Amino acid sequence: MQKELILEKIEQAAKILSEKDIDMWLIYVRETGNIKDPMMDMLVGTNATWQSAFIITKDGNTHAIIGSLEYENMKTIGTYKNIHPYLKSIKEKFLDVIEQIKPNKIAINYSRNSSLADGLTHGLYLELLDHLKDTDYINRFISSEEIVSTLRGRKSPKELELIKKAIKETLNIFDEVTNYMKPGMTEKQIASFVHNLVKERGYELAWDKEYCPSVFTGPDTAGAHSGPTDRIIEPGHVVNLDFGLKIDGYCSDLQRTWYILKPNEDTPPDEVQKGFNVIHEAITKAANELRAGKKGWEIDEVARNYIQINGYSEFPHGLGHQVGRSVHDGGALLGPKWERYGNLPFLEIEEGNVFTLEPRLTIDNYGIATIEEMVLVTNNGCEFLSERQKELYLIK
Amino acid sequence: MQKELILEKIEQAAKILSEKDIDMWLIYVRETGNIKDPMMDMLVGTNATWQSAFIITKDGNTHAIIGSLEYENMKTIGTYKNIHPYLKSIKEKFLDVIEQIKPNKIAINYSRNSSLADGLTHGLYLELLDHLKDTDYINRFISSEEIVSTLRGRKSPKELELIKKAIKETLNIFDEVTNYMKPGMTEKQIASFVHNLVKERGYELAWDKEYCPSVFTGPDTAGAHSGPTDRIIEPGHVVNLDFGLKIDGYCSDLQRTWYILKPNEDTPPDEVQKGFNVIHEAITKAANELRAGKKGWEIDEVARNYIQINGYSEFPHGLGHQVGRSVHDGGALLGPKWERYGNLPFLEIEEGNVFTLEPRLTIDNYGIATIEEMVLVTNNGCEFLSERQKELYLIK
Repeated sequence: MQKELILEKIEQAAKILSEKDIDMWLIYVRETGNIKDPMMDMLVGTNATWQSAFIITKDGNTHAIIGSLEYENMKTIGTYKNIHPYLKSIKEKFLDVIEQIKPNKIAINYSRNSSLADGLTHGLYLELLDHLKDTDYINRFISSEEIVSTLRGRKSPKELELIKKAIKETLNIFDEVTNYMKPGMTEKQIASFVHNLVKERGYELAWDKEYCPSVFTGPDTAGAHSGPTDRIIEPGHVVNLDFGLKIDGYCSDLQRTWYILKPNEDTPPDEVQKGFNVIHEAITKAANELRAGKKGWEIDEVARNYIQINGYSEFPHGLGHQVGRSVHDGGALLGPKWERYGNLPFLEIEEGNVFTLEPRLTIDNYGIATIEEMVLVTNNGCEFLSERQKELYLIK
Repeated sequence: MQKELILEKIEQAAKILSEKDIDMWLIYVRETGNIKDPMMDMLVGTNATWQSAFIITKDGNTHAIIGSLEYENMKTIGTYKNIHPYLKSIKEKFLDVIEQIKPNKIAINYSRNSSLADGLTHGLYLELLDHLKDTDYINRFISSEEIVSTLRGRKSPKELELIKKAIKETLNIFDEVTNYMKPGMTEKQIASFVHNLVKERGYELAWDKEYCPSVFTGPDTAGAHSGPTDRIIEPGHVVNLDFGLKIDGYCSDLQRTWYILKPNEDTPPDEVQKGFNVIHEAITKAANELRAGKKGWEIDEVARNYIQINGYSEFPHGLGHQVGRSVHDGGALLGPKWERYGNLPFLEIEEGNVFTLEPRLTIDNYGIATIEEMVLVTNNGCEFLSERQKELYLIK
C-alpha cells in the first residue's frame, strides 16, 4: 500500500513538473534518521544515510543516487526506477545523472514560506553548490515551493481514503470521551484515557503526545498548543479537546466542545450556547465561501469577521490549514494576512485540497469554545469529511 | 528527568561557548512537527510551530522567542529562562533580544560535515538574513559544527546512565534471540520476535523499524542497511543481527553473530571460527589504540588493516560512530579518509565520547561476521560499555 501510494504521488509529481515545465526535481538528503526532508515519506519511502539524491524528471523518470550499503534496501522498497549506488563520494554519479537529464530548471526543497518545501538544510545546500561548481547547473536552481504545495494539496483517491479512516476513528474516540468524562476528573486523566484507546488500537498520534490531545477545561485554561494539566473539570466549565490520529501515514485533526452542567441545569447557560452557536455558524459561513480559485485569506476573513461582529475577540491563529501526511500540510492556508504566515494565505485553493476549519472564541467565565471540522474542496465548493458537531455535548 | 537532562546540556553548551568565546548560539526553527533541527530534543525539549528562536549565551542565559499560543507550554516545559511570545511576526522581538546580547559571533546550525549541526533549513536561513538585513549581525554568523560536536560528544553522567540502560536491555534481547533461533526460521521471523519483545517492554527502536533489527543469514545476504527478508536460516549459515534500542531518548547500537551447526558438527568450521576471531581481535586492537587526542581515522585504520592482513576485503563503511540521543551521534567518527565522511575522521577524540566498534568481514560460503560493541573514551584509554561477545553463539 505504501509503495503504491508513493508511486501514485511520483506520477502526480511528474505531471506537475510537466505542467510547470520544470525538468527535474531533486530531493537531496543525508542521515535522515537525524533530520528528514518532509518530502521523503511521500516520495521515497525509506531512509538514507550518506548524501543521497532522489530525482524525478518531468517525463516521469526517477533516479536514486545512494550509498552502496543501501542498494539492496532501495531495490526492495522499489519506488525508484534507476538506482545508482556509490561508495566513496556521491559527486561523480550525481554529475553523470544530471548530465543525462541536462535540466534547464532544477527544483530543490527550499522555501521561505513553507516548511514542507524547506527540507534542504543550509549545509547540504552548500554541498550541492560545491558538487556543481564547475558546471552551469549551479545557476538553474529554483524553489520547489509551488510543486510541493500543489502535490501535497491534490489528494489522490488512496490518500483521501486514508484521511477519511483517520477522521472516522477520531470521531469514535470523541464519542467514547463523551461517555467517560465526569466532573472531578483532570485534563490529564482525559488525555490518558485517549492515549490508552489509541495504544489499544495500534494507531499513532497525529502530533506530539504531550499535546495530542490538548484538553482545556474552564475559564482559566492555558492557550492552544499546550499540554493537559492537573486542572479539574468542574460543573460550569466549557471543555474542549484538540486531537488527531495518524493511520497508515495520514492524519486527522479535529476539535470538539463539551459543557459540564451544574446540578441545577438541564441546558447550558445562554452565553455558553451563544458561543457555541457562533462557532458553529462561523464554520458554516466559511464553508459556504470555500471553493477552488479563492484565496485562503478570503475564507479566513469570513469566519474572523463573523466572530468579531458577534462581540468576541478574533482568534489568534488561522481559520484552517491543510491536512495530509502531516497534520499541517500543503501550501495554501486559510489564514489572515499576517507576516507570520508569509505568502500562504495568498495562494489559490485547489480542487482536492483538504482543510481544517477551526475558529475559536472565549466565553468569559466558562472557557473556550472551539469546533474543528475537516473539509474537502470539490469541483463546486466543499464537502465535510467529518460529521459535524451540531450541538454542545452535555455532561451531567 | 528530561528537563534535568536538558538543563544539564544547556549548562554544558554555555561552558563550551565560553571556552570558544562565541557570544551566542541560535537554534532557529518552525513547524518542527514537519522537520526538526536535531538539537531541539537535546536543548529545548518541545516542539515549535511558527518561526522560533532558542538562544543560549556564553554567560548561561537563555531566551525562547516563540508564537504566543505556545507561551504556556514553554513555561510548563521550563527549560528557558526568558520567554518572549509574539503574535504576528518574530522579527521585532528577535531584534530586541539580539540587541540586548550584542553578539560578535552568532553560531547557527549549518554544517557541510555533520547532519546533527545542520538543522537550519536553507529557506529559514534566508528568512534569518532578511530579519537581520539592516543590522551588522548579518555578518556575524558562524557554523555551530564544533559546538555541536563537542556538546553531543561529552556525555554527562545522566546521559551515560541512560545509554548503559539501553545497552543492557539490548544484550538481554540478544540472549533471548539465542534461545529462540532455530534453523528453518526466516530473517523476518527473528525480526518479528525482537519487535514483540520491544513492544512488550515499552521501548522504542533506535532506528527505522524496517531494518531494526537487521537480520542477515547465510552467504547470499543483502548488504547492511537492508531489512530482513524471507531467507531461511539453514545449517551452515553465519547469522548476524544489527539492533539497538532507544530508552528515555538515548540509544544503543550493537551487533552479534551466530553460527548454525550442521547435523554432524559440534563446533564451527575453521574458516568460520577464523572469521569470528579476526573480527574479535580487530575490535581489541582498535580499542587498545582508542584514546582522547587521537583522530578517528587512526583507530579505523588499525581494524581495517588487521582485517586485510588476514586476507579479507576491507569493510565498506567506518569502524565506528558516536551514539547518544541519535544512533549516529556526535562529530568525530572512527572512519577512513573517504570524501563521503567529510572532515569527521579528522576530528579529535575527546574524553566522554561514546563510540561503536563495528568491523565486518565476509566468510565465503557462510555469511557475514560482525560484532559491534560500544565503548566510552576515558581519561586514559577506553572502556567497554557492552559486555563483549567473546565466542560465536552456536545454534543446533
